[in-house]
Amino acid sequence: MAAKEAAASVPSTPLLKDELDIVIPTIRNLDFLEMWRPFFQPYHLIIVQDGDPSKTINVPKGFDYELYNRNDINRILGPKANCISFKDSACRCFGYMVSKKKYIYTIDDDCFVAKDPSGKDINALEQHIKNLLSPSTPYFFNTLYDPYREGADFVRGYPFSLREGAPTAVSHGLWLNIPDYDAPTQLVKPRERNSRYVDAVLTIPKGTLFPMCGMNLAFDRQLIGPAMYFGLMGDGQPIGRYDDMWAGWCIKVICDHLGLGVKTGLPYIWHSKASNPFVNLKKEYKGIFWQEELIPFFQSASLPKDCTTVQKCYIELSKQVKEKLGKIDPYFTKLADAMVTWIEAWDELNSAGAQAPAPVANGTAKK
Amino acid sequence: MAAKEAAASVPSTPLLKDELDIVIPTIRNLDFLEMWRPFFQPYHLIIVQDGDPSKTINVPKGFDYELYNRNDINRILGPKANCISFKDSACRCFGYMVSKKKYIYTIDDDCFVAKDPSGKDINALEQHIKNLLSPSTPYFFNTLYDPYREGADFVRGYPFSLREGAPTAVSHGLWLNIPDYDAPTQLVKPRERNSRYVDAVLTIPKGTLFPMCGMNLAFDRQLIGPAMYFGLMGDGQPIGRYDDMWAGWCIKVICDHLGLGVKTGLPYIWHSKASNPFVNLKKEYKGIFWQEELIPFFQSASLPKDCTTVQKCYIELSKQVKEKLGKIDPYFTKLADAMVTWIEAWDELNSAGAQAPAPVANGTAKK
Repeated sequence: MAAKEAAASVPSTPLLKDELDIVIPTIRNLDFLEMWRPFFQPYHLIIVQDGDPSKTINVPKGFDYELYNRNDINRILGPKANCISFKDSACRCFGYMVSKKKYIYTIDDDCFVAKDPSGKDINALEQHIKNLLSPSTPYFFNTLYDPYREGADFVRGYPFSLREGAPTAVSHGLWLNIPDYDAPTQLVKPRERNSRYVDAVLTIPKGTLFPMCGMNLAFDRQLIGPAMYFGLMGDGQPIGRYDDMWAGWCIKVICDHLGLGVKTGLPYIWHSKASNPFVNLKKEYKGIFWQEELIPFFQSASLPKDCTTVQKCYIELSKQVKEKLGKIDPYFTKLADAMVTWIEAWDELNSAGAQAPAPVANGTAKK
Repeated sequence: MAAKEAAASVPSTPLLKDELDIVIPTIRNLDFLEMWRPFFQPYHLIIVQDGDPSKTINVPKGFDYELYNRNDINRILGPKANCISFKDSACRCFGYMVSKKKYIYTIDDDCFVAKDPSGKDINALEQHIKNLLSPSTPYFFNTLYDPYREGADFVRGYPFSLREGAPTAVSHGLWLNIPDYDAPTQLVKPRERNSRYVDAVLTIPKGTLFPMCGMNLAFDRQLIGPAMYFGLMGDGQPIGRYDDMWAGWCIKVICDHLGLGVKTGLPYIWHSKASNPFVNLKKEYKGIFWQEELIPFFQSASLPKDCTTVQKCYIELSKQVKEKLGKIDPYFTKLADAMVTWIEAWDELNSAGAQAPAPVANGTAKK
């Protein structure tokens, strides 16, 4: 099993050092990177500065980064910049678009290094890379979880023709301490903390949707990048905190169609602080209604056979959004248009002749 | 959340003491019960003796049990006894049929009490009961696993209309030490042991099949019992070791159709010894070919709306088996007929006026 051997022989040099960008949306100084230094410093960072572009974001010394603020986004995308959210962490998807790497890891700036049950610091990025480099098993459930992991395999009754698995497009990591709850659950359970370390990675089966959280997420940009659009959220929009959910539903439908895998489970990060549930409720409340219609929509969404690329799938999905969800609220018509704009902007920046955009600031200062 | 409260307030008296039977297929003395005494002694055992009926099976003192050997099965079922396998642990399903309880737990006699990571003995039966008494979540994946568990909940983006969950019909437990591998994997990895304790219970999503192992399995007999048929295996049949797999595919299709949930994960038992891989290969090899066609069959099987009971679903499934799988091998025509016989026998023994069958031996000897 080639994939298994590749995952088992982890080199001492950082995995995929030149093939992965770390995307961080932020409004504050990135002191949280100090804790991640042993794991992140070899990689290039793409920082998407949200909010006031005149504010200076400090990046700890020694990190190699490029930083984009709203002025950069407007300058680089021109009128198409309206597909990138403002005053919402959804702005992070701009970073996916300007990256030239094969893989993306995105993390929130209130996420710290967690410890495994033995007390060892968890290298979240390394686990995500292992998840992405080994196949997924979307067509049949393996009861001993990830069959490609050291010490595990496919159990009795698992069809042999399915044991090659499918290419993995997405690796969704979890959170210790503050769980990713919605505002109503935060309000009802203000003191709930996640202390359960579940030592498993599993593939979300084909045909099953899941709530994808953007806090600790990695993906293969070449396989699924153009579908990783975090929608219209925040400033001027009627909704927030559904950016990653929206992306999760879209990518799952498209991965299912294209035969790609989506994993969830390890690695954990330490989510340090709960956001304000009252503020969250205001952002979420329309989403709480709308998701009741969005889930059946995505559950029954089907893409025609001639949708053979992510871009084609995404444009087709945008049409279905406009046609079927436009009735719920004019917001979805606007969102459907933004989905098209996003793909146009993606293709513009990622065509063969596209030039690398110039960020406002970048640094490679050595300690 | 009523189900959550019910699961949290575990009484000190054994859960479901008078509503659950433990079914054990065996060919040997049941010394393994000694280790289970603290957990199993309050419950009634149904022992299905396989092989030579003249052999006496010793049951440790203090257990309340009834025992059926092949002569009993033939006497009780008459000509319908041909649906019960001989010289194969598939014979256990006779125990499901003669039980009068709401719940069944079945365990193999080479399975011992496992320890959790803290070193505490795992009460497997108690965990199965918790799994069965709390709802399942087959329609949407919860990334923090069982949302009804203490300290967990539904994460952000989980539709509120789905948080009531679905009734749980089946709880599939796992194995530490010897994993449940097929003969080829056993041959390739003779020394592989499962030492990973994954602290999770999860619902197998609707539309997804899984390899159900009968070693450590609990179910709600009222909800799904008539579909828990372990097929024709062993003596006189071209196949073995697919009894639980067959049942697992059938129950999953029917649970999906009837809106019932199937869980897998905790509890673990300690599986003490690997069976002989050469013997297993002989039993399995036709199954290894056939399952490549069986899985697509079950994945695309659909039951009409008027199949509103498990029996109706099962009879309908038997027709589809005969029609679509009969072409693969005459065995499936025979199996389809046996599926019908099984339902007839089940209904005969479980009708309102049915008398309890008299086993050859039963005991309630006190220590």
